[in-house]
Order: sequence, then structure tokens, then C-alpha cells
Amino acid sequence: MHNNFFTLSLTAIMLASICRAQTSPNISDDFKPSPLNQPGQEYPQVNSLGYARFRVKAPQADSIRVSLGLGGRGGTLLTKGADGFFTGTTEGPMDEGFHYYHLTIDGGIFNDPGALNYYGSTRWESGIEIPAKDQDFYALKDVPHGNVQQVLFPSKSTGTSRRAYVYTPPGYGRSAKKYPVLYLQHGWGEDETAWSNQGRANLIMDNLIADAKVKPFIIVMTYGMTNETKWGGMRNFKIDAFQTVLTEELIPYIDANFQTLANRENRAMAGLSMGGMETHTITLNKPELFNYYALLSGGTFNPEELKGKPKPKLIFLSCGSKERPDGVKTAATTLKDAGFNAVSYVSENTAHEFLTWRRSLRELAPLLFN
Amino acid sequence: MHNNFFTLSLTAIMLASICRAQTSPNISDDFKPSPLNQPGQEYPQVNSLGYARFRVKAPQADSIRVSLGLGGRGGTLLTKGADGFFTGTTEGPMDEGFHYYHLTIDGGIFNDPGALNYYGSTRWESGIEIPAKDQDFYALKDVPHGNVQQVLFPSKSTGTSRRAYVYTPPGYGRSAKKYPVLYLQHGWGEDETAWSNQGRANLIMDNLIADAKVKPFIIVMTYGMTNETKWGGMRNFKIDAFQTVLTEELIPYIDANFQTLANRENRAMAGLSMGGMETHTITLNKPELFNYYALLSGGTFNPEELKGKPKPKLIFLSCGSKERPDGVKTAATTLKDAGFNAVSYVSENTAHEFLTWRRSLRELAPLLFN
Repeated sequence: MHNNFFTLSLTAIMLASICRAQTSPNISDDFKPSPLNQPGQEYPQVNSLGYARFRVKAPQADSIRVSLGLGGRGGTLLTKGADGFFTGTTEGPMDEGFHYYHLTIDGGIFNDPGALNYYGSTRWESGIEIPAKDQDFYALKDVPHGNVQQVLFPSKSTGTSRRAYVYTPPGYGRSAKKYPVLYLQHGWGEDETAWSNQGRANLIMDNLIADAKVKPFIIVMTYGMTNETKWGGMRNFKIDAFQTVLTEELIPYIDANFQTLANRENRAMAGLSMGGMETHTITLNKPELFNYYALLSGGTFNPEELKGKPKPKLIFLSCGSKERPDGVKTAATTLKDAGFNAVSYVSENTAHEFLTWRRSLRELAPLLFN
Repeated sequence: MHNNFFTLSLTAIMLASICRAQTSPNISDDFKPSPLNQPGQEYPQVNSLGYARFRVKAPQADSIRVSLGLGGRGGTLLTKGADGFFTGTTEGPMDEGFHYYHLTIDGGIFNDPGALNYYGSTRWESGIEIPAKDQDFYALKDVPHGNVQQVLFPSKSTGTSRRAYVYTPPGYGRSAKKYPVLYLQHGWGEDETAWSNQGRANLIMDNLIADAKVKPFIIVMTYGMTNETKWGGMRNFKIDAFQTVLTEELIPYIDANFQTLANRENRAMAGLSMGGMETHTITLNKPELFNYYALLSGGTFNPEELKGKPKPKLIFLSCGSKERPDGVKTAATTLKDAGFNAVSYVSENTAHEFLTWRRSLRELAPLLFN
């Protein structure tokens, strides 16, 4: 059976090559499996221009549509072949970096069996990666690696054991050395797995540390939609429940159980999108806890709301060039004029997606705890 | 849209209740969402008798079959309703514990969007949990929790950074205390995530430690199909590649980076199914490294093959009562007659599945490192 499948795949690939030449003469032919495929899976594939190609078996299905493709046009409709496989290529190139997607099969929503899954949109979705020209900074390389620890911490306020992931830098625990801590939040519909899985925060840190570009620090990532239900919207978001978990339960747990420099001077908070909104609110509510604030595609600060509070050592604002880059640039200038150490960063040719946030972490990390 | 979906779900549940009464009068009506569902998902459901019920939206699909159900009969065919949802209940009860499954939708294989995914059969599959009567031992409880650390260790023999997960018991790292180590292997088609995700090894240990039933130890779990490809079979399995990674790369890395008692006296190896076969071979090849051997649904030892080698302090053999329990019992008796400290354990009413192995770990752990 395995051999038959292999043979079938080769045949299909050859057929696909013929069809491809006829239908899409301008698409570069260097398609390779996406780096985020399940082990041994040939599809989905991506090429050097950023096109994605899909191939899904469902011999008796009528219709399969991929949610990726040109914005607003309903994604990519696959074409059914005589071999029972649906295939298709995005109409245009996609942005470099990570994208969530799913299949609509005869009206139902499913994941692509070829791809790994990532938690976003309050569900585990398929993921695909268009390798970026600067992919080296988030690549798995032959350097010393830190660990990512799953921690279950007690939370009286919510009556549960809650989960956090803790990145500890290479060498952590081999001496009594204590480290600063960055609390790093995901976006709406994501969870505490996002920054390691789709964000590759651990690899970005490992690489920056290997290049001696950052002072090693711990990163703590937990679930930020504490008061949200499946059907909840941002409209009614209240910070209280999450702020309590973070500041009264998680921070004390981390300081009690990890080798941390447990003071404001050595504590930062950052978040992407909704996590930026949380960072904004919590750092304003609890400025005595954090010394570095970072909003990644997550809004801005203005000098007025910071007035009369302990001054942060850094305010970092970022977004993708396809978002509203003028917003973060203007805000940083206004903050600087008011005497704050504010830095803005714009990720070129990316939108509200993870490559923006990977790059933002790369830019932010060297500015922390100096 | 969210509100509409909620309304639709309630209507469908009410309709389902009516149909259920007509078609399955003997099935207990206490269906609840499986504990392994994605956040907020109502289906799949399980009842107290071990039946599973499925509900999948795909309005234009012709056929959806669930791979679970009575053995050998091709699983459970779902029935399409006027609302575009396919629903169905297993024809009979299933064994307690964890089961992998998938959907066949119009001839293609996909995961159930309601369920979390677990790596088995060399792919991420849907998982469902029939709560066991003894589920308390693997439940997430309000006790001190150890951590599960993702470790990337260098492997010269394979030219890569390889991944392992390391369970460290509660309090690990808060003093200079050193711990014994159990190397614990998954089965064929699974990976290093299996023992934490579907096996709940960390929660089993946390609970045993809270009850003072075990001497706390570290557990190390890594990928054991080092020489396997997607199409590889067990027929051609060679131990060399994995043995090198485990004994020459991983063990030294763990002993260098964790607070371990780095000697034979304090090192155990165990594995389930194929992992048992690996344990069998590697402990015989490298008896100077391990003092405790455990095969979980993974074969047996005989006195002849152990002759002339350093004697293990314990040989543990287990399986489910629906496997070949006489085999492990007889082997343990033979080993005891030959002067070995051999223990057999049979998990009642389970087969070659994870509840057998969760229970085996519960029985094995108190016997280690005493």
C-alpha cells in the first residue's frame, strides 16, 4: 500500500507538471514542500515567488476551496483531477512568512491533512510558511538552544491550573545566575502556544544570543483571553481577569520557581495585536511592575496617559508596512518629543501576520534590559 | 454570526435528542463533550457507557465515515441531516481511555474539526477520550505540578538538532538536588509528544508525587523512529541509529544540562509497543547504562538473553487484558524463577492503547529507583 501511494504520487506530480506548464506559464517552477508540513508530506508547496500550491485527496467530493489567496476574493478554488486529487495554485504570490488557512470541503471547514496545525481564530488551523529572504534569523541552527518549558501554575482567581510556556536561555540553571523576564502575549484567537510555534520566539532568541546581540532573558507566555468565550468579541473585552492572573498569580509563580531578577527594572511586557492592547492597559494600570513596554501591531501610547506614572525605560511600537506604519512612527516621535525613550519599527512588506511579529521580537530583544 | 451559530447548535441538539430516542433506545443519554475537544467545541461527545457521538458540518458532502466503532467493520457511517450536519453514534461502546481517529469525507482522510490532534500513525490524528473509571490518576488536579521542557539537543550522528521533552518534578531546580532519570519511548508512528499529550505522563507523575507514592524522578522522551521514513515498516527496523542518538548524544546532553544522578543505578529505560522493542534491544546492548527495564505492550525478556550481563534491578512487563496477558505473566514467572526481580501488570479491559500505558506508568513508577 505504501509503495502504491508512492507510485501514485509520482504519477500525479508528473501530470501536474504538464498541466502547470499549460495553465500558469509565468509561475516559477521551484515549488518545494512548505517547511510546516507534516512529516513526509509533499503538499502544500511554496515557490520562491511566494505562490502556494495545494493537493488534497477526496475522490467523491464536489468542491474544495483553500482560504488563502488574493484577499477578499474567497481564496483559491481547487480543481478536481481524474485521480481523485484536488489541486490548485494561488492566483498571486503571498506575503513572506507564516499564514493560517483551512479548506472548505463541500461546505464544511477542515484542515489540510498535509500541514501542521497552529492555534489561531480560536481553533487549530493549518499553517503554511513562505520562506522569507531574512529567514535565517528564525531558523533552527547549530547553536546552543534554550528550552521551552510547559508550566502549570495555580490560579485562585479562575479556580484552575493554568498553562504558561517559559523560554529559558541556553545555560539556564547550570549556575545560580538570575535573568530578566519578558512577558509576551499572543493575539486574539491564539493561545500560549503561538509565540513558540508560529512565532519561533525560542529560535529567534537562541540565534540572537549566539550572535551576542542580546542580554539573555527569560520569556513567559500565557493565555490572555481569560475572560473570553468562544463567542466573545473584542467589543466586551475587560482586562481585569487577565490582569489578575498575570500580575497576582503568574508573575509571583515565575519569580518563586525560576531564577529571575524579580523587580521592575528587569521586567518587560509585550504583546501582539490584542496582546498589545493588553500590554497597553496593564502597563498603564501597573507601571510599578514593568520597565519596558512593547506593542506589536497593537496600538500606541501617548504622553498624556503616561503622565505622573513611573517612567518606562523603553516604549517599543511596531507593525507591518501593510498595516498603518505612520501610526507607530508618529506616536514614537510624539513620545520622544515628550521625553520618552520610544522606538518604532516597521516590518517591510508584511501585514498583520507573524513575520511582522517575529521581526519585531528580533528588533525589540536587543533593546531590553540594557 | 457567532450568535447564529450558537442558536443553530441548540436547535440541532434538540433535533438530535428526538432522533436519538427513536433510533437508539438503549443508549444512555448522558453524552458530554469529549475532554479532548478543541476549546468550546460540543462534538464529539461520549457517554458513561463508552459510546461516542459525532457531528460534523459539510452541507454538500455525500459521505462521512468515522474510523472508530466496532472493530473490523469500517467504523461509523454518519447520517446527513437537513441542516447540513452529519451525525452518528458508534454502534457499540468503546474501551475506556484515549483513541485516535479520523474522518473519511467523500473518500479523503481529514481530522474532525471538533477534536484536538495527536501524533500517531505518522500523522496528526483526531483524539477522543472515553473517561475511565479510574481517571483520577491521570487528571489535572490542584497539586504541585512539574514542568515539561522542550529541549533541542545537538546530534552529530544525524546532523541535526533533535527534540526531546523532559519532565522535571515539582520543585526541580529550586535546590541542587539531583534526580534519577527514566528514558521513556513512544510507539510506532508516534513521536516525542505522545507520552505527554496522549499519555499524560506529567500529570500521572504529579499525582503520584503528591500522594508520596514515588520517589521523584526526571522523564526524558525523544523520537525513536530515527531510521524510519514515512514509508518504512517495522520489518526493516534497525536499532543502530536510534541507539547512537539515545546513548551517545541524548544521555550525555541530559546529564550535562539537568540535575541528574548520572549513573546506571539511577537510570531506567521503558517503552510502549515499538518503544518496548527498542528498550529490549538497547538494554541488552548497553546493560551498563540502565538498571531498570520496562516493556509496555512491547514484548518480553527471557533469562537466556540476560545471562552474563549486569543484572537489572527490575524488569517490568505489561499489556492490556485484550492483548496477550498470558505472555507477560508467563515471562515474568520465568524470569523470577531464574532469579530476576520481574513484575508483570495487566490493565483490565484495555487493548493496545494509551490507557494501558498510562496505567502501566502508574504501576511502574513506584517501583523505580528504590
